[in-house]
Amino acid sequence: MFTQRRFIQLHDTDAYGILFFANQLRFCHDAFQEWLRQLGMPMEPRRDRAVFVAVVVHAESDYRAPVDLGDEITVTMHVAKLGTTSFTSAFSFTNQRGVVVGEARLVQVTINPMTSGKIAIPADLRAALAANHV
Amino acid sequence: MFTQRRFIQLHDTDAYGILFFANQLRFCHDAFQEWLRQLGMPMEPRRDRAVFVAVVVHAESDYRAPVDLGDEITVTMHVAKLGTTSFTSAFSFTNQRGVVVGEARLVQVTINPMTSGKIAIPADLRAALAANHV
Amino acid sequence: MFTQRRFIQLHDTDAYGILFFANQLRFCHDAFQEWLRQLGMPMEPRRDRAVFVAVVVHAESDYRAPVDLGDEITVTMHVAKLGTTSFTSAFSFTNQRGVVVGEARLVQVTINPMTSGKIAIPADLRAALAANHV
Amino acid sequence: MFTQRRFIQLHDTDAYGILFFANQLRFCHDAFQEWLRQLGMPMEPRRDRAVFVAVVVHAESDYRAPVDLGDEITVTMHVAKLGTTSFTSAFSFTNQRGVVVGEARLVQVTINPMTSGKIAIPADLRAALAANHV
Repeated sequence: MFTQRRFIQLHDTDAYGILFFANQLRFCHDAFQEWLRQLGMPMEPRRDRAVFVAVVVHAESDYRAPVDLGDEITVTMHVAKLGTTSFTSAFSFTNQRGVVVGEARLVQVTINPMTSGKIAIPADLRAALAANHV
Repeated sequence: MFTQRRFIQLHDTDAYGILFFANQLRFCHDAFQEWLRQLGMPMEPRRDRAVFVAVVVHAESDYRAPVDLGDEITVTMHVAKLGTTSFTSAFSFTNQRGVVVGEARLVQVTINPMTSGKIAIPADLRAALAANHV
Repeated sequence: MFTQRRFIQLHDTDAYGILFFANQLRFCHDAFQEWLRQLGMPMEPRRDRAVFVAVVVHAESDYRAPVDLGDEITVTMHVAKLGTTSFTSAFSFTNQRGVVVGEARLVQVTINPMTSGKIAIPADLRAALAANHV
Repeated sequence: MFTQRRFIQLHDTDAYGILFFANQLRFCHDAFQEWLRQLGMPMEPRRDRAVFVAVVVHAESDYRAPVDLGDEITVTMHVAKLGTTSFTSAFSFTNQRGVVVGEARLVQVTINPMTSGKIAIPADLRAALAANHV
């Protein structure tokens, strides 16, 4: 299980005083990107040089408790489902008091960056996903 | 059914050349806010003066086709479910070629902005939601 | 002088109850992009197909009065300086009560999207900028 | 001099393949917020409980070299000017190859969060700013 810590920044929040809901899904992708980086498989800066792109085809997010400016959020990520050309990651968000404030899931499909056609998950990514599969 | 037109701005996109997925959920809330405004029930600028807050407790989003910089997206919104203290809005996103590029749903709960406790959907909002219920 | 009207959305604001300052510069680029579109010279969705890119090399922004959720902001844009390979656009932001809430300037340089080297402002863009030059 | 390291996330970039310019100013505020936190003076989550608010009244940003997805950016911040009710912070952004990719400045004014009137910079903040004054 991959873990990332982050603090809620002013721009993450909105005038109603809490995290703007869509930002929780941004946090998911940030965790995914950081996981790839720590694995030594960072995202290619240019799409046209990438071997694959892991496109998000479905995202969902639940909100259980308010998230305030300055909160220290621990993001955990694990792989919930691992297919041939797609995988599902599950995320949870816990604040500094141990409260689970939210949960989310992303379904990503691996595509050829040039043709945008589906391709099998590349072997090194598959191995990393399998190791994180709960 | 409420409809809003928008163009995909540079900051909506990412280095992989398309709409950053979480922004589709931002577009949902923009449509909801604009719908309230056109109804003559604009969001209160200050939470502490609001009669109610419609907090998002669940969001989900599907992505069917790439959305490019400059695309003209028609957002449609209708009410899919109307409860006592919550409602579900369904959104679809269609591009300038008539392709449905995405869909989304938000579940919102009406709360008292001071106590954060659930309250019944206020009568005027309920009437507006009912009129938009398909 | 180009004019665009926009409403301050929930995600534009922050927990301190007003527009998050950096978003005012986002509004500048949105106005620039919309101006190009209305001129019939929309931004190319893909950088590698663009004839030129107008890269921002300097941005500055002043804040004169609070901008609240729901405020109706009129953005005006004119060209303040027109060089060979660069131009400066000046923006002002006025709310629904006629108060100038902010001002901004962008300096953009035209480059070849492939080499990233400076190029002369293309003739059709130059003509449009000149017509908007005050 | 305060230093913060960050990686350029997918959502920080745009379809033209680089950092969306306004995000560099967001990074400034993130550094300021993190500096306050590390000093043990974190921003108050609620404006109405804050002793002061440090409102941005001017921001400016220069861009010297492209910033790509995945770049590791070191943000440095120091205080360039320290007045009675305002202060100017200067930021620089250096990538993993030691290239200064950008610079920025923020001018902030301390106000009473309730009246929005200017107040003298509180003593503890003033001491911290003075210690970071170059």
